[in-house]
Amino acid sequence: MMCGMAPDPNRRRESSRRAILTAAFDLLQEVGYAKLTIEGIAARAGVGKQTIYRWWPSKGIVIFDAFLMLNEAPEGGPPLLPDTGDLHADLTAVLRATVVELNDPRYDQPLRALSTEITHDPELAAAYVERLDKPMRQAKRQRLRSAQQAGQLAEDLDLDMAVDIIWAPVLNRWLQRSGPLTTEYADSIVAIALDGLRPRRPGD
Amino acid sequence: MMCGMAPDPNRRRESSRRAILTAAFDLLQEVGYAKLTIEGIAARAGVGKQTIYRWWPSKGIVIFDAFLMLNEAPEGGPPLLPDTGDLHADLTAVLRATVVELNDPRYDQPLRALSTEITHDPELAAAYVERLDKPMRQAKRQRLRSAQQAGQLAEDLDLDMAVDIIWAPVLNRWLQRSGPLTTEYADSIVAIALDGLRPRRPGD
Repeated sequence: MMCGMAPDPNRRRESSRRAILTAAFDLLQEVGYAKLTIEGIAARAGVGKQTIYRWWPSKGIVIFDAFLMLNEAPEGGPPLLPDTGDLHADLTAVLRATVVELNDPRYDQPLRALSTEITHDPELAAAYVERLDKPMRQAKRQRLRSAQQAGQLAEDLDLDMAVDIIWAPVLNRWLQRSGPLTTEYADSIVAIALDGLRPRRPGD
Repeated sequence: MMCGMAPDPNRRRESSRRAILTAAFDLLQEVGYAKLTIEGIAARAGVGKQTIYRWWPSKGIVIFDAFLMLNEAPEGGPPLLPDTGDLHADLTAVLRATVVELNDPRYDQPLRALSTEITHDPELAAAYVERLDKPMRQAKRQRLRSAQQAGQLAEDLDLDMAVDIIWAPVLNRWLQRSGPLTTEYADSIVAIALDGLRPRRPGD
């Protein structure tokens, strides 16, 4: 055991962690969030449930970490939005991609589960804001700042508010199922957010 | 029992229904949604749990109906938004009222519970859209239509999209706890939604 052939405990731990998160994610899609249990995840991953409880206090946190693992960029580095110089086109492309992701059955259950936990658990909400929402928001704000510097956005516009106005309608429509979530919907939201509800003079 | 002194069974049923919904609503605020059970509601309301299951298939539907009961306008009639002719002022007043309601501890748990059920239950979502969202959306659209007819909104603006752009950010910030939900936030959302993100010429 001292000759260097023993499995690296860090690596073994990491591989258990990934097995548990993958099991949680798969099981969630099969049974739904209400019926997901720590026992079920343990059985699927082939570990004892104490192993799971040692790392995660609740099934909500397991799903949260599974979701983070899924979103790890393979090349690492923070997320970035496209910047072709055409703000309207770039925002439309990104918001369409969001719509496609939200409509993907593989993400539907995990995202709804995560959203539910956030709704009811202020601590998880804070972790979500810090680890998932903040880096994405940073990327969105950066794209808007570049447009603002180019004079394409109002000088005094609060970019955080702008992010909310563009992204909240899509997320809300998905969560509340208040209507079909289509790429056309994404297109209209971008157009209306940029122009505003009030009339513009021709050419403005 | 045939002399007309027997209690009216319809009235008794209605009073049981109200007792159950009130019990559900009160209990929800005490124990939170995760620990709310049909048994607990039955005990609090002083009825058998079969009585509850006869009318409601799940605790989500009980909370939904409790919420509807709470929102019944005492004078009846559909909801209406203020229309002073000043669209900016009217929208700001209404969105501020929404913020105050969402921040009210009496509504926090029931609204989060309802939102969770809607997220996971397409049938309940449809009932929500039909019975709660639609009448409110109708009132919002009507206020916007009156502004559109007065030339205060773009002629070709889709009023449903406009409703989403104004209300979704507030609801989303509350649900996701992504930042403080203040009346100043409501004010900024209205201002930015009306003007749009792109610059306007002075006086436009």
